[in-house]
Amino acid sequence: MSAKHSAPVANAARDGFLKRWVRLSTLLLATTAFAGSAHGDEGMWLIDQTAGYASIAPDSSEKVTLPLGAVTALGSCTASFVSSAGLLLTNHHCLSGSVQYNSAPDRNYWTNGFVARERRDELPAAPGTRIHVIEQWREVTRELDAGTAGLAKKQREKLVESRRKALLAPCESLPGRRCYIRSYWGGTRQYFEQRLELQDIRLVYAPAAGLGDFGGDTDNWNWPRHSGDFGFYRAYVAPDGTPAPYAAGNIPYTPPAVLTVSREGVSEGEPVWTAGFPVSTNRLATAAEATFDLSRYEPAWLALLKDYEAQIVAATAGQAEKQMRYANILDNASNYRKKLIGSLAGAEAANVPARKQAFEAALQRWAKGKAGQDKLAPALGILNAAASEREAMRLYSLQRSTLERAQLLQAARVLYRWAKERGKADADRAAGFRDADRQLVSDRLRRIQSRFDALVDRSLFERALEEYHKLPASERSQAFETHVGAMDLDQVYSATRLGNLDDRLAWLDQPASAFERSTDPFIQLAVTLYPDDEAREEASRALSKRTEAARDTYLAAVAAYRNAAGMPAYPDADGTMRISRGRIERQVRDGEIWTPFTTAVGLLEKQRGDGDFNAPERLVSAIRARDFGAYAVADTGQMPVNFLSSADITNGNSGSPTLNAKGEIVGLVFDGTTDGVISDWFHVAERNRTIHVDIRFILWVMEKVDGAGHIVREMTGPQ
Amino acid sequence: MSAKHSAPVANAARDGFLKRWVRLSTLLLATTAFAGSAHGDEGMWLIDQTAGYASIAPDSSEKVTLPLGAVTALGSCTASFVSSAGLLLTNHHCLSGSVQYNSAPDRNYWTNGFVARERRDELPAAPGTRIHVIEQWREVTRELDAGTAGLAKKQREKLVESRRKALLAPCESLPGRRCYIRSYWGGTRQYFEQRLELQDIRLVYAPAAGLGDFGGDTDNWNWPRHSGDFGFYRAYVAPDGTPAPYAAGNIPYTPPAVLTVSREGVSEGEPVWTAGFPVSTNRLATAAEATFDLSRYEPAWLALLKDYEAQIVAATAGQAEKQMRYANILDNASNYRKKLIGSLAGAEAANVPARKQAFEAALQRWAKGKAGQDKLAPALGILNAAASEREAMRLYSLQRSTLERAQLLQAARVLYRWAKERGKADADRAAGFRDADRQLVSDRLRRIQSRFDALVDRSLFERALEEYHKLPASERSQAFETHVGAMDLDQVYSATRLGNLDDRLAWLDQPASAFERSTDPFIQLAVTLYPDDEAREEASRALSKRTEAARDTYLAAVAAYRNAAGMPAYPDADGTMRISRGRIERQVRDGEIWTPFTTAVGLLEKQRGDGDFNAPERLVSAIRARDFGAYAVADTGQMPVNFLSSADITNGNSGSPTLNAKGEIVGLVFDGTTDGVISDWFHVAERNRTIHVDIRFILWVMEKVDGAGHIVREMTGPQ
Repeated sequence: MSAKHSAPVANAARDGFLKRWVRLSTLLLATTAFAGSAHGDEGMWLIDQTAGYASIAPDSSEKVTLPLGAVTALGSCTASFVSSAGLLLTNHHCLSGSVQYNSAPDRNYWTNGFVARERRDELPAAPGTRIHVIEQWREVTRELDAGTAGLAKKQREKLVESRRKALLAPCESLPGRRCYIRSYWGGTRQYFEQRLELQDIRLVYAPAAGLGDFGGDTDNWNWPRHSGDFGFYRAYVAPDGTPAPYAAGNIPYTPPAVLTVSREGVSEGEPVWTAGFPVSTNRLATAAEATFDLSRYEPAWLALLKDYEAQIVAATAGQAEKQMRYANILDNASNYRKKLIGSLAGAEAANVPARKQAFEAALQRWAKGKAGQDKLAPALGILNAAASEREAMRLYSLQRSTLERAQLLQAARVLYRWAKERGKADADRAAGFRDADRQLVSDRLRRIQSRFDALVDRSLFERALEEYHKLPASERSQAFETHVGAMDLDQVYSATRLGNLDDRLAWLDQPASAFERSTDPFIQLAVTLYPDDEAREEASRALSKRTEAARDTYLAAVAAYRNAAGMPAYPDADGTMRISRGRIERQVRDGEIWTPFTTAVGLLEKQRGDGDFNAPERLVSAIRARDFGAYAVADTGQMPVNFLSSADITNGNSGSPTLNAKGEIVGLVFDGTTDGVISDWFHVAERNRTIHVDIRFILWVMEKVDGAGHIVREMTGPQ
Repeated sequence: MSAKHSAPVANAARDGFLKRWVRLSTLLLATTAFAGSAHGDEGMWLIDQTAGYASIAPDSSEKVTLPLGAVTALGSCTASFVSSAGLLLTNHHCLSGSVQYNSAPDRNYWTNGFVARERRDELPAAPGTRIHVIEQWREVTRELDAGTAGLAKKQREKLVESRRKALLAPCESLPGRRCYIRSYWGGTRQYFEQRLELQDIRLVYAPAAGLGDFGGDTDNWNWPRHSGDFGFYRAYVAPDGTPAPYAAGNIPYTPPAVLTVSREGVSEGEPVWTAGFPVSTNRLATAAEATFDLSRYEPAWLALLKDYEAQIVAATAGQAEKQMRYANILDNASNYRKKLIGSLAGAEAANVPARKQAFEAALQRWAKGKAGQDKLAPALGILNAAASEREAMRLYSLQRSTLERAQLLQAARVLYRWAKERGKADADRAAGFRDADRQLVSDRLRRIQSRFDALVDRSLFERALEEYHKLPASERSQAFETHVGAMDLDQVYSATRLGNLDDRLAWLDQPASAFERSTDPFIQLAVTLYPDDEAREEASRALSKRTEAARDTYLAAVAAYRNAAGMPAYPDADGTMRISRGRIERQVRDGEIWTPFTTAVGLLEKQRGDGDFNAPERLVSAIRARDFGAYAVADTGQMPVNFLSSADITNGNSGSPTLNAKGEIVGLVFDGTTDGVISDWFHVAERNRTIHVDIRFILWVMEKVDGAGHIVREMTGPQ
C-alpha cells in the first residue's frame, strides 16, 4: 500500500469540503489490487478487474495496490497527485499548452522553462484545462437490469431508463461533477462513474522545451529516446473546497489520495504497472471492420493527411510568421501521420487482418452449439452485411472532413450548431454542446486566433472544396455547392468578420435565426451545410441503432469466449481509467536490439544545440559534470533517462504514472513506438512497447539542474 | 589465392594489348598478402604493408591474398573486376550519375532500373567516367634518395628532382597513363604508381533506385540499413587494346585479374578485408590542428552548409522543376551536413581532442633524448607557432568559398584560370588544369546545365556577397568589390551568356586576353577576382613550404614512434589503394545494440511505397514469397541484406569489395555511420563501423528479381 492518506484540511469547519473528503476516504479503502496477467502483457483493465476474471492470474509477488482518486484525467492526458496540496505530475507535452499560453517575448517559459518559487508565482493554466478526479466507480448492472428479463422490450427500456436517471440524479445535483453510466460487453456489465471536475489548474513547473521535448518530431514515436517529458500542475478549489474557476483567493485542492515517488528506480525484467485514461482502441472490431480500416480507411486518411501537410508547407513557405502559426497544426498532423504509417506497417508485418480472422473463426467454432451462443453467427452476419454501407459512409465522411480544415468555416459550423442545440433541453443535446461545455467551445474559438492565417486558410478551403466536389452527387449538399459556387473567395475572406475574435465569440449568444439572417459568408455556408450534416449524423446513428443488438451479442460472446479460453478480456479503451501491467523489456528488431534504458550520456551524443536536439546549457553542463549522486545506477554510474516496458497503453495514457510493485512512481508514460501502434487494433506482444521517463532523471533534473528541489521536498518530505 | 587469371584475348595478334597483358600478368605475382592487425581493426594499409611493419601481427588463419589490378578507382569510388570481359562491380550510388544520364521520360532507368540483355545494349556512362587500373606500385625511396645525404640542400633537391623525372618519364610516354610519385612519412618512404586510365565505360546493370537507394537520405549514414546499393559497369578499350573514348567498335577490356564472388556469405565474428581508394583522412594532423578543426572549422562549415540548404529550400519552395534541378546539390549538402554533425558529436563523445593531446604528449615523451628524434620538439613548436596563421587563413577561405555556390561566377573563374594555366608548360600547371584534365573540366561545365536556375543562383550569389563583405578588408578583393558594387544584379543575370552551354564551352579555347576584353559580367568578375585568388593560393603554398621541414620531421617521428610502440602505422588516406581488415561486428550504443545483419523482412517493414522507402513491387513480392533458395541463412531461413563490420574505411571506399579469408567477395562497402565518421580524425574502435551489401542479397536479386542471371553466370561461370 503506497498511498499516503491525505490529511484533513486545516479548517475542519468547511463542511462541504469535509463531507467530500470523508466520502473519498471511504473510497480509498476500495483500492484496486492488480496482478500480472498470464497472457503476455496484454490488457487495459477496468479498475475492478482485479480478481473476478479468469484471465487474471494473481501472483502475490507481482501485485500492485492503487488508491482511487490519486490518478486523474487531464484532457486527453493523465496526471497523478503527488502531494496533499494538490500537486500533479504529468508530461511536459500535457502542459505545454499552458507554458505557451503564459509565455511572451520577455518571459519565454517555452524556451527557458518555468519554476514557481512559491505558490503565488504559480500561473493559470491555458483556458479549458480541467482535472477529473474519479470519485465513484462501481458496477450497477444488477441495479439497472434486475427483474427486467421477463418484460417486453419497450417496457424494459423504459424501466432501465428511469433507473439510469435515478442513478445519475444525485451526482448531477452536485456542483462540478461529471456523471456517467458506462456500458461494456454489449451491456452485460455496466458501471456508474462520478468525476469531480476541477477548473482552477495552475502551472507549477515545466522544464525548458529543449529538455521536455528533447528529440522533438525527429524522435517522436522512436527509440532510443532521451526526453525529459515531465512537468507539474497544481489543482485549486474555492475556499469552501468546491470546484471553481481561477480566482486569486482559491486554495490548493486536497486530493483523496496521493502517490509516492521512488528514489530507487527499476531495472530490466522488473514488473511495472501503469494507470491512466486511454482514449480509444479498436481491438473489439470485427475482422471485417479491422481489415477495412487497415487496408482502405487508414491509407486514405494517410493520403489526406500528407496532402494537408504539403498544402500548409507550400502555403507558408519562406514566411516565418505563418509557419509559427501553423507549427502546432503541422506537428499534430506529422504526429498522426507517423502513427498511421506505423499502424499500416505493423498490420503488414504482424499480419493483423489474418490474425483477426483466425480469432473470429476460433470464436465461431467455440460458440457453435454452445448454450446461449446461438445468436453469434446471425449477429456477425448482420454486422458483416452492414459493413459495406458503414464503410462507404466512413470513407465519404473522411473525404468530407477536409472542409473542417478551413478554420473560419468550421467555427461558423460549430457556432450554428451551438445555437441549434441550445434550442433543446440540456440533457437532450449532442455531446459537446451542453451548457457545461460552453467554456470548452469558447476556448476552441479563441484558439483560432493564434493559429490562423487568411491566405493559408483560403488555400486549404479551396483544396477542401476540390475534394468535396469529387464526392458522388448523393453525398454532397446541393445547397452548399450552389452557394459556394456563387461566391468569390477573395470577397469571402475580406467580407467575413469571423476572423475577429470578439465577433466570433459574440455568436455564442445568438439564436439560430440570427445566423439564418446573417450576411457573413461563412455563417451562410454553415447554415446551408447544416441540414446535410444533420442528415448524415442521423443516418450514422440509424445504422448503429440497426446493428446495436447484433453488436451487443457479438461483444458479449467475445467476452465469454475470451474468459473461457483464458485470454485477457477487457473492454476497448473509452477514456475511462485503466490499469496495465508490463515489464521493463528490450525489443528485438531487424538489425538491432532496443535495450531498455537510455542514459544521460546518450542525450549528450544527440545534443546539437539547435532544432530538435537543443537541451539547455545548464543540463548539458550538469551531465558533463556527472554529479548524479544517489540517482546513478549502482554498477555503471550512469544516469538513466528513459526506459521501455511492455505495458499496454495508447493515446490518453500520456502522463500516466509507472508504478513498481510497491505502488511507488518509478517513471512516467510519455510515448509509444511506431512498431507498437498496431496494437490499437490487435495486441502484438513482440512489437508493443511503452516509453517512460525514469523518475531518477526527473528528481535529479529537479534537484541539480532546474533548482526545483522545493518541489521534490513537497513530494517526498524532508529527507 | 582467389583471383582467376584473366584469359588472353581472342586475337593474339593485338600486340600492344598483349604486351600490356603480359606485363600485368607479371604484376599479378606480386600479390598482396594482408593479415589482421593486433591493434583493434585500425588501419588503411598501403598495399605493400603486409609484413614489413612491426605493427602487423600476421596470423595464418586470418590472412587474405589480393591480386593487384582487380580493384580499380572509379572517380571517388572503388570498383572491382568480376569477369575477364571487363565487368565491374560497384555501388549503385557510384554509377547513379550514368543511370540518370541515360534516363528520359520514356526510359526511366532511375525509377525502373536497367539490365543490358546483351553487350550491344550496354549504355555509355556519364561523361567523365573513368576507371583507373593500378599497373605498378613500388617503393622508390632508395632510387630517389641514394647518395643524397651528404649533399647540400640545393644540390640534393636538384638531384632528386631529376631522378623523379627520370622515374616518371617512361610512364608518361605511354598513352592513357597517370603517373605519380607518392611520398609518405615526411618523405621517408616514396612510391612510384602507374595507373591505366580507361575512358569507355558502359552501364551494364543498375537496380531500380527504389532498391539501389532504398532508405535514401533518411537512412543515409544510419543503421539498420536495407539498401541494394550495387550495380555493374563494363570497361571497353580500342580494338588494339589501348584506352580510348567511347566508340561503337571498342571491345571489352581484359583486366589483369578478377575477383570471384562467394555464394556462402559470412556470419558475425568472421574476419573480412576491404580494398579500395579512400580519398582523405586527417589522423596525422597535430593535436592543435585537430582541435581547431573540431572546435572551430567544422562548426563554421556546418553553419554555412545549413544556411546553404535553407537558402535553396526557400528559393525553390513550391517549384517542382527548380527543386529537381537542385535535388542533387541538396542531397550532397545534406549528406555532408550529416557527416559533419556526426564528426562533431563523435569528437565530443569520444573526447578526441584530449586523446590527440595524450597521443602527442606520449610521442614527445618517447622522443625525448632518443637519438635522431631531437628535432621533434622544435618541429612541433614551428607547426604550432604557424597554427594561428593557418587557422585564420582556412576560416577566411571557408567564408570566401560561399562565392563558389554562384555557379555561373564559378564557371567563369574556372574558365579564366584554365586560360591562364594554358599559358604555362603542361607539367607546371596546377592540378586539374593539365591537358589531360580538359574533358573533366568540360564535363563539369556541362553539368551546370541540369542543376542551375538563374533566380536561385542569384539568391545564392547575393547571400555569398553578404558573407564576403563580412570579411576583414585585408581578406577581400577591392577590385572585385568595386566592380560587383557597380553592377545591377538583374542586369548581370540577363546580360551574361554563361547560362548557355555552348557559350560556356566556347570559352575553353579562348586566351586569357579574350577574358580581359569581355563584357560578360561574370567573366569580368572572374578577371577581377583572379589576382586575389592567386595571391591567397601563393600565401597558402608559402606557409606550407615554410613548415614543410617541420611537418616532415613530425610525420617521420610519428611513424617511428607508432612502429616502436606496436601501434598501427599507416599514412593518411590520399586516394591511393588501401587495404583494411575488420570483423563482422555489432555495436553497442545508448539504448540499443546494432546487431550486424539486416534481413529482407526488415526491408519490407520499412517499405512505404513512396519517398525514401519505395522498393519496386517485384522485389516486395519476391521477398513475400520467401523463395530465397540457397542464399538464405541456414538456421533462420532469412535473406541477409546488409551487414556491419569494423573495417576501417572512409569516403572513396564506396564500392570496395568485401573479401573473406579466401579472397572471395562476400559484400560491397557502401557507407559508414555518423557514429564512426570521427575516425577521419582519430580511429575510435568502439564507434567505427562500415556498412556492406551482402553478396547473397546481390546474387538473389539478380537471379530472382531483376532477371540478371546472365550477369551472375558471367561472374561465376555455369553452375
